[in-house]
Amino acid sequence: MTYSDGVLMESAISEHLKCPRTLTRRVPDTYAPPFPMWVGRSDEKLHQVVMGYFGVQFRGDEQRSDALAAMRHIVASLDLADGALHHDLTHHLDNQGYENLIVAGYWTDPVSQQRWSNSRAVADWWESADRLSDGLGFFREIVAPRAEQFETLYAFQDNLPGVGAVMDGISGDINEHGYWGSMRERFPISQTDWMQPSGELRVIAGDPTAGGRVVVRGHDNIALIRSGQDWADAEADERSLYLDEILPTLEAGMDFLRDNGQAVGCYSNRFVRNIDIDGNFLDLSYNIGHWASLDNLERWSESHPTHLRIFTTFFRVAENLEKLRLYHEVSVFDADAQQYEYINCHPHTGMLRDATH
Amino acid sequence: MTYSDGVLMESAISEHLKCPRTLTRRVPDTYAPPFPMWVGRSDEKLHQVVMGYFGVQFRGDEQRSDALAAMRHIVASLDLADGALHHDLTHHLDNQGYENLIVAGYWTDPVSQQRWSNSRAVADWWESADRLSDGLGFFREIVAPRAEQFETLYAFQDNLPGVGAVMDGISGDINEHGYWGSMRERFPISQTDWMQPSGELRVIAGDPTAGGRVVVRGHDNIALIRSGQDWADAEADERSLYLDEILPTLEAGMDFLRDNGQAVGCYSNRFVRNIDIDGNFLDLSYNIGHWASLDNLERWSESHPTHLRIFTTFFRVAENLEKLRLYHEVSVFDADAQQYEYINCHPHTGMLRDATH
Repeated sequence: MTYSDGVLMESAISEHLKCPRTLTRRVPDTYAPPFPMWVGRSDEKLHQVVMGYFGVQFRGDEQRSDALAAMRHIVASLDLADGALHHDLTHHLDNQGYENLIVAGYWTDPVSQQRWSNSRAVADWWESADRLSDGLGFFREIVAPRAEQFETLYAFQDNLPGVGAVMDGISGDINEHGYWGSMRERFPISQTDWMQPSGELRVIAGDPTAGGRVVVRGHDNIALIRSGQDWADAEADERSLYLDEILPTLEAGMDFLRDNGQAVGCYSNRFVRNIDIDGNFLDLSYNIGHWASLDNLERWSESHPTHLRIFTTFFRVAENLEKLRLYHEVSVFDADAQQYEYINCHPHTGMLRDATH
Repeated sequence: MTYSDGVLMESAISEHLKCPRTLTRRVPDTYAPPFPMWVGRSDEKLHQVVMGYFGVQFRGDEQRSDALAAMRHIVASLDLADGALHHDLTHHLDNQGYENLIVAGYWTDPVSQQRWSNSRAVADWWESADRLSDGLGFFREIVAPRAEQFETLYAFQDNLPGVGAVMDGISGDINEHGYWGSMRERFPISQTDWMQPSGELRVIAGDPTAGGRVVVRGHDNIALIRSGQDWADAEADERSLYLDEILPTLEAGMDFLRDNGQAVGCYSNRFVRNIDIDGNFLDLSYNIGHWASLDNLERWSESHPTHLRIFTTFFRVAENLEKLRLYHEVSVFDADAQQYEYINCHPHTGMLRDATH
């Protein structure tokens, strides 16, 4: 008796997003996953979400309180009309020695997000000359996948983080997981579209090496993965599983991508730790990875020793996890549904490193 | 500059076996493998091959010379009219404490193989009452994939072993390798067929626990993998790579399948060492694995820690291999293109273990 005998399995693709396939799945209809996982569900009213990563970059302890104040300013602005429905806060040290605070906000309506972004308070703050002179770096990386352009996967069923927090609920046990290629097959658009990249990452305003304001234009089907870990409520055995067994390998893999991503098609990789509004570390973390294509992300994930080690560990423990929460969300975007803007950030920040001039 | 820039890539599927697809590939047309590999080529005159595994089973040193004599008798019979075009010899100890000698023979014409099998000398020997009384076990596992039902993959280009030895030659660099799912995509039949299993393995004559003659009937799309290693000509560094780094993990994986295969859909797994006609070990080996479906083989290969470790090691060293020769051939079969027959073999031999009565 395997796990899936007798379990009524759902497709990761919601009924209202199903369409006649021109591309077939990798696995036959008889495929049954070895353990249960779940995806976020939204009804047909959700057409497009917006994911905004609002960053503050600084160096040295003397800038910390200014940076935290800037972060709190951004968080407060999310409470204005048309602000994000959900957000979380993170910190990470990058490989240039800079610290970064990021506010990740989620909207379910791009028009609303646009109104927020164009509102006097938000626009004035971003456009203010003070942003160039207050000694901090700032960035905003805002992307908007349509409903068929993102997928989620959770090893738990309640209190969904990230985009799941603005969705309507959770699925039953889904079929499309547990094999290489299942990430792609959870994307509704994979029924008919290869999600092939087109064009290249280009600096369309400013000069990254000169600092100041820089704008990067993306291309079709850049892929973004947010892959998270939450050990806040884990008991001792699961804390040890995560901190002693999974984390060292995870850090090795994420460091590899941060430092060597360009060769494998990873534009940017930030392994971030959640913080509270005062900057204190929480027992949650996630990785934010931008890729030239979903294809590049697939190739790395299924061949790099670090990721394969994490994968086999997860396979071994998945069915018995109690409080350790592991998940991811992956999106692709049209070129014009992406906005990458930087103010006084170092030239290896985010999409700056790999953008051509 | 990656390996594949500027390399004219061939499909693993020969031109004359291409057909309009109803099933799509997993990877986009832009996929480029990270290092070169090659497949065997035959022209359109090859419609079906036959792979015959002819075994002698014995226990204890006192039976060894009789067993070797029986093996030599089988080898000699391959020189009769319509005999195999190519063969090799192997030895393995199974998990019931029995030793097994196998003659693996290859034909390019099932009619010819049938004539050989029905010839007086061959048929009389197999059907003789002496086979029941001479104290040895015997088996023959004969399968015949059509040209669209098998695929090969070599990390070298000359002196192809196994089925490659009866093919016409070697391809140029092929596209379909280096990602999970590429094995399936090298099968010509994968263009239109899922290779789904149907039915079950059944004992249709005899009783495995009673010994004597037993016949097992297969089902559609049983999959057979022969996965080989040849370190005969390897220099010290590659011998060490194979013997010290790859082999221990390979043995762990193959032992797992031999002893626990039933749970993952592996009917039989024999990790065999090549021998000469006198029974002396050669520096070649291969694994012979029978699976309930290609799907089962895929799932195990892409998720079991031992195989993933071998895979990442291979990825690391593949491009620089000089004399260490690694390859595989994988086939699926129609139910009536399989013949599994046993004489006085223990009930865990080959397909006997998992066949229902």
